[in-house]
Amino acid sequence: MATNLVRFAKDGATAWGVALPGGISPLSGTYATTADLIANGEADWRQARTVAPGVDFTAVELLSPVTAPARLLCQGANYRQHMIESGVNPDDKVFNMFFEKSDCSLNAPMGKVARPAHVRLLDYEIELALVFRAAITGPVTVTESNLADYVFGLVIANDVSARDVQLPQMQFFKGKSYRGFCPVGPHLAVLEREEFRYLDHLSLTLAVNGEIRQQDETANLVFKPAETITELSTFSDVAPGDLLLTGTPSGCALRVPPPLVRKLTQLLLPEKKLWATFGRMQARRPQYLKPGDVVTASIASADRVVDLGEQRVTITA
Amino acid sequence: MATNLVRFAKDGATAWGVALPGGISPLSGTYATTADLIANGEADWRQARTVAPGVDFTAVELLSPVTAPARLLCQGANYRQHMIESGVNPDDKVFNMFFEKSDCSLNAPMGKVARPAHVRLLDYEIELALVFRAAITGPVTVTESNLADYVFGLVIANDVSARDVQLPQMQFFKGKSYRGFCPVGPHLAVLEREEFRYLDHLSLTLAVNGEIRQQDETANLVFKPAETITELSTFSDVAPGDLLLTGTPSGCALRVPPPLVRKLTQLLLPEKKLWATFGRMQARRPQYLKPGDVVTASIASADRVVDLGEQRVTITA
Repeated sequence: MATNLVRFAKDGATAWGVALPGGISPLSGTYATTADLIANGEADWRQARTVAPGVDFTAVELLSPVTAPARLLCQGANYRQHMIESGVNPDDKVFNMFFEKSDCSLNAPMGKVARPAHVRLLDYEIELALVFRAAITGPVTVTESNLADYVFGLVIANDVSARDVQLPQMQFFKGKSYRGFCPVGPHLAVLEREEFRYLDHLSLTLAVNGEIRQQDETANLVFKPAETITELSTFSDVAPGDLLLTGTPSGCALRVPPPLVRKLTQLLLPEKKLWATFGRMQARRPQYLKPGDVVTASIASADRVVDLGEQRVTITA
Repeated sequence: MATNLVRFAKDGATAWGVALPGGISPLSGTYATTADLIANGEADWRQARTVAPGVDFTAVELLSPVTAPARLLCQGANYRQHMIESGVNPDDKVFNMFFEKSDCSLNAPMGKVARPAHVRLLDYEIELALVFRAAITGPVTVTESNLADYVFGLVIANDVSARDVQLPQMQFFKGKSYRGFCPVGPHLAVLEREEFRYLDHLSLTLAVNGEIRQQDETANLVFKPAETITELSTFSDVAPGDLLLTGTPSGCALRVPPPLVRKLTQLLLPEKKLWATFGRMQARRPQYLKPGDVVTASIASADRVVDLGEQRVTITA
């Protein structure tokens, strides 16, 4: 059974605990950062999970179990159906797409996401995210059998995206990095070595105001964690507590026209008109997030041995 | 007169000094990181610049004056001529493009850049880069009059780019982040408050094997540092010692066809063929960097009050 760590604020202090069915069993030590917890907290959380929960969930404010500073390393278009809809054959596995979100986007799992004043096309992206255990400072070969040496645990991340910044400006970094654009948690699920086989068998579900929008299985990930970290290590260092967001399934608010239509429009319309048209067409889609919308997200295995909890954020103006 | 700080290795130790005409005047303190130097080194370097140089340039190995971990925040297409060649009207100032390089790309100013085995289209990009002095943790309004509160100094950065990764895969982060892809220095030029007016009057020159490829003036920067940092603060935190690369002038090895030709080709060729054709056409250009090539880069004001030194790196296989 994975251990579900949570980070929370209570009576003006920040603490860590283990989420249990009846509440939170607090850790006795204090750990300023996720990296500190990874390095020094193991005996503490192994002890805490054997103790009856002493803190009620309603008495705390849950925080992101990933602390800044941290690298938020992201994969784009990594689910089979999402690729097919974008006009790409997933079996080609042409390339693994990487980008970064800024760590100022880190946000609580039960908080608010403010839509910036200039953004109209605010979208959601549920993602399984891996929390690194070990530093990487040079190329490494990661396989399923040594993955546990590199990965400490799993979290839900919502890769909130301003499509009207990301796409017309071809700017993944800017369009996805506004403050609050990365709710993380509630659970940081620490896997035992033999539980890593669950990585390929997790279900992801995201709903807006109770209506399911995204639903898929990590079995449909095109580039798996081990091969992804192997490639990542050729062009990025990693520190304990950094995050790898593994991509989102289909079902976002964004609807991209088929490749041929896209190319024809690009040919026929001048750049400014093209994106004005894109903006108008997308703005008609009621799926984009508006102030007041509530986004819930959950990731778990069918038997609940791995259960990352339920994230619940409200969009504000 | 700006103070030209250098970081160097000598007799197995790493130290800081002030570059003077006859050599290096070492600082008496040790500073593990650029942030440490910014916070605690001022009296030390002000003293060192008044002392006759005690260390010969030939006795040291110059290192990047920007240490990891650091954010390498980058602007794309930010010089007038470069924009015009890409089919964009710089006076439109449509958007300021941001992306990141990983800090594992940081490299010495006089060292080697290894071309990864799978890369054929290795390109250079000389850039003026600003080293941050102050932390930014929320939106700020930066103007020419308070810019000195945010910026500590200036360095030359070469934003080395694998075009065959960056463009077919639309991956700025990956194509520009391989280890060694960001030679920085030699000088970290610390400006006095009244010297910030020089920011708009610096000449950049990059040559390959002595042949000038890039030459422009910071007067032609489309998005200026103050407005850029103001926008950046809305979607990224900054720590002291982080770097902002302000974009590169025209003259790279990469030659992009005019927008109409680009759009027509995109319409007519399937994706894979399109990029194979791109690769073939670009590979014919002798300007791309090959093992053995020597890239020199310098940035200075006409009166040499601001002089970031000469960077000199060799390409290896």
